[in-house]
Amino acid sequence: MECKKGAPVGVFDSGVGGLTVVREIIRQLPDENIVYFGDTARVPYGSKSPKTVIRFSEQIIRFLKTKQVKAIVIACNTASALALDTVRDKFDVPILGVVSPGARAAVAVTQKQKIGVVGTDATVRSGVYTQVIHRMDPQIQVIEKACPLFVPLVEEGFKEHVVTQEIIEYYLESLRATDIDAMILGCTHYPLLRSRIRAYMGEEIQIVNPAYETAADLKALLKEQNMDNDSTDASGSRYEFYVSDMAEKFRQFANTVMPFDVPETNVVNIEDF
Amino acid sequence: MECKKGAPVGVFDSGVGGLTVVREIIRQLPDENIVYFGDTARVPYGSKSPKTVIRFSEQIIRFLKTKQVKAIVIACNTASALALDTVRDKFDVPILGVVSPGARAAVAVTQKQKIGVVGTDATVRSGVYTQVIHRMDPQIQVIEKACPLFVPLVEEGFKEHVVTQEIIEYYLESLRATDIDAMILGCTHYPLLRSRIRAYMGEEIQIVNPAYETAADLKALLKEQNMDNDSTDASGSRYEFYVSDMAEKFRQFANTVMPFDVPETNVVNIEDF
Repeated sequence: MECKKGAPVGVFDSGVGGLTVVREIIRQLPDENIVYFGDTARVPYGSKSPKTVIRFSEQIIRFLKTKQVKAIVIACNTASALALDTVRDKFDVPILGVVSPGARAAVAVTQKQKIGVVGTDATVRSGVYTQVIHRMDPQIQVIEKACPLFVPLVEEGFKEHVVTQEIIEYYLESLRATDIDAMILGCTHYPLLRSRIRAYMGEEIQIVNPAYETAADLKALLKEQNMDNDSTDASGSRYEFYVSDMAEKFRQFANTVMPFDVPETNVVNIEDF
Repeated sequence: MECKKGAPVGVFDSGVGGLTVVREIIRQLPDENIVYFGDTARVPYGSKSPKTVIRFSEQIIRFLKTKQVKAIVIACNTASALALDTVRDKFDVPILGVVSPGARAAVAVTQKQKIGVVGTDATVRSGVYTQVIHRMDPQIQVIEKACPLFVPLVEEGFKEHVVTQEIIEYYLESLRATDIDAMILGCTHYPLLRSRIRAYMGEEIQIVNPAYETAADLKALLKEQNMDNDSTDASGSRYEFYVSDMAEKFRQFANTVMPFDVPETNVVNIEDF
């Protein structure tokens, strides 16, 4: 496996949300090279069917494999929820999702055995967070709530707008009325609303962002398979960004999330893969 | 051309919005057969680039041609704005968009020579409404305003919610402060918010929905090219619905818009075309 140590990690999302996961991977694994793909031509995934999200994910994985990635992180909750099992069976590269790491973190912090999950329509409809949490501890009560407008609010720059507060209250009122003590942000866009969600839900509820645990899982996987990049070659650490559309808009958004200047972003015709 | 009279008209949109145009075509041309395609796997188009929207439109037109359509209506403002000229040059079937009909209707009603246009980011960025109106009358002042959250609000069923009112005010405040006397609903989703938009903008502003004029243009085109269906064969009038994803969700929505029970909706893998 020695030859794979310097190979990049592939990370993908339906759009820009997965950059919050990349940011965490860079923090925890500063020596790894990363190839990111954002499916900006077909975003969002959260309102689409399992069959379609699986087909899109397979195309992206085929593209990432052309970049000789040594492992792949699905930094999108919807794709993790709907496609992870299928693509793991189909491809010969290790693939991690964000659902299990997020579930594990929430299981670790809940004292009352009651966890809330917020996510897209597709993620909540899949019930995968409940399944995964119950595999870890069948006694835990899981309450899932779809919040489909959070993604467009973030994407349209309404983060600070008064209507965002009202939509947060509209979606989360029923969750706040329960006695959950942990809540998973089950969509990679939602950490961008974290402080408002936290303020509404109250300090006694632990807000879980799966990005941290996902990066930790990746670190463990690379170490275990002796694929971690231990090169101190200065030319080693590189980040490449690919999208299926709107490269310049993506780059500008990425610059607000990443701790460095995001280089040129390349457009890929993902349907060809 | 005789053989084409009974052939269907193809109508497409990024999703469900184009059904408001189909409804109008059915009203004005009750004898025509219609094949509808909604690109629900890749909706929305309004935040995507011209290149991508052109590629998607070409795939859909190739699919519609397999249904032997005699004419095609692009019932999506974004695709009309970004792709119409390109696909007209490329395909040998008559193709109509919604922009020119909408512009013509607004030019006909404005007295103050001031027209407002609301639409998606992509439509407004293209500036095509302004260009088309200026070709009709260079003296008219056109004020365009992108309202990107209107589509997700409609799709997520927030039509009646208080936040929709606030977002309408947020987007339209600057338009209301002008002295426009006509306003084009330059996105096929927006007619579904028409009564609220009308209430906010006031009775003195004429709200133009391009669907009516588009159906009238189609009628004129079919007559002129001797392609109008004059068969009184009872088996003649048929409507077929195709989507790229989420057929059942589409059918349920379509049932709320169409004046008849929408039959089975078929899924097409549009990327194969």
